[in-house]
Amino acid sequence: MKREQGSLFVISGPSGVGKGTLRKKLFEQMPNLRYSVSVTTREPREEEQEGHDYFFVDEETFQEYIKLNKFAEWAKVHGDYKGTLLSTIEKTLAGGFDLLLEIDVRGALQIKEKYPEGIFIFIAPPSWEKLEDRLRGRKTEGEDELKKRLDDAHFEMEHIRFYDYLIINNQIERAVEELKAIITSERCRIKDKKKC
Amino acid sequence: MKREQGSLFVISGPSGVGKGTLRKKLFEQMPNLRYSVSVTTREPREEEQEGHDYFFVDEETFQEYIKLNKFAEWAKVHGDYKGTLLSTIEKTLAGGFDLLLEIDVRGALQIKEKYPEGIFIFIAPPSWEKLEDRLRGRKTEGEDELKKRLDDAHFEMEHIRFYDYLIINNQIERAVEELKAIITSERCRIKDKKKC
Repeated sequence: MKREQGSLFVISGPSGVGKGTLRKKLFEQMPNLRYSVSVTTREPREEEQEGHDYFFVDEETFQEYIKLNKFAEWAKVHGDYKGTLLSTIEKTLAGGFDLLLEIDVRGALQIKEKYPEGIFIFIAPPSWEKLEDRLRGRKTEGEDELKKRLDDAHFEMEHIRFYDYLIINNQIERAVEELKAIITSERCRIKDKKKC
Repeated sequence: MKREQGSLFVISGPSGVGKGTLRKKLFEQMPNLRYSVSVTTREPREEEQEGHDYFFVDEETFQEYIKLNKFAEWAKVHGDYKGTLLSTIEKTLAGGFDLLLEIDVRGALQIKEKYPEGIFIFIAPPSWEKLEDRLRGRKTEGEDELKKRLDDAHFEMEHIRFYDYLIINNQIERAVEELKAIITSERCRIKDKKKC
């Protein structure tokens, strides 16, 4: 029963749903899990670290990576480029480690085409009101930016049914437990199952 | 997101694998889960309680239930009849409660025909030696009975691939965590999923 290949977990959910906090708590409790660091052309936020939260590159480098087919998925989101390197996924899974990707719905659909065996988890807010409150509370963007994020949130929420699991982030500790449970249970899943 | 219908969880595994202990610990930690009490014609063991571990009936009553199509599954195992009432499953799920069935592989395959949406979990011993040790340690049966149970264990182990999940009961606390994780994660599963 040796684990030869890791599993790929993809989490998505609208901006402001609390994915960052959820991820932080998850990794504290599951240190063996690996996080897929994305490449981005956007400016780092104050608390973000190079190589930990993102690989920050300029647009020229990003375009070069696209040409060289280095990405498993990439997109231009809110004016900035963001992508996941194929090498990150391949190396981690081949090493027997489970990998967590945090990406938007468009990126997730690209990943699903390349890795249909991946496990796709959607994080939803308890309500639209709460989501808007959280985005307003963040205060890193203006009204136009906020409206754009809410429109994107609508688009994302319409794609829930492409995912395997849905977590409603109503209470953070419960959401972490559910996320951990999904990862633990997937490690027990029988892959090449017979139908009877 | 109201849960209108409960989920059906079926656990199987050879005699002596520790299903009883596992189940007891699971229910201590998940009090909302319901246990499906089977009907049996065998004699109760010392610690077993009527209506809690089994419904103990005579063979005449059991045959009557078969004629009346009251069973979701039934079998003659080790000389005794054992079955699950359809009404137990239907009432519990309709009430919005998750139900756990602990039955052998033959019973599980019957359940799978009637409830293909059920979640099937196999509990396996860490090794054949450990299983034999545990069965010998139980001392409730003679050598012939032991041989029969080991033959049955081989038959059961050959059917693992009909199940959705496999738990190796190497360390009981870990096995309980995995079982809980499977139940928690299934509650987050998106049922009518779209393929992309």
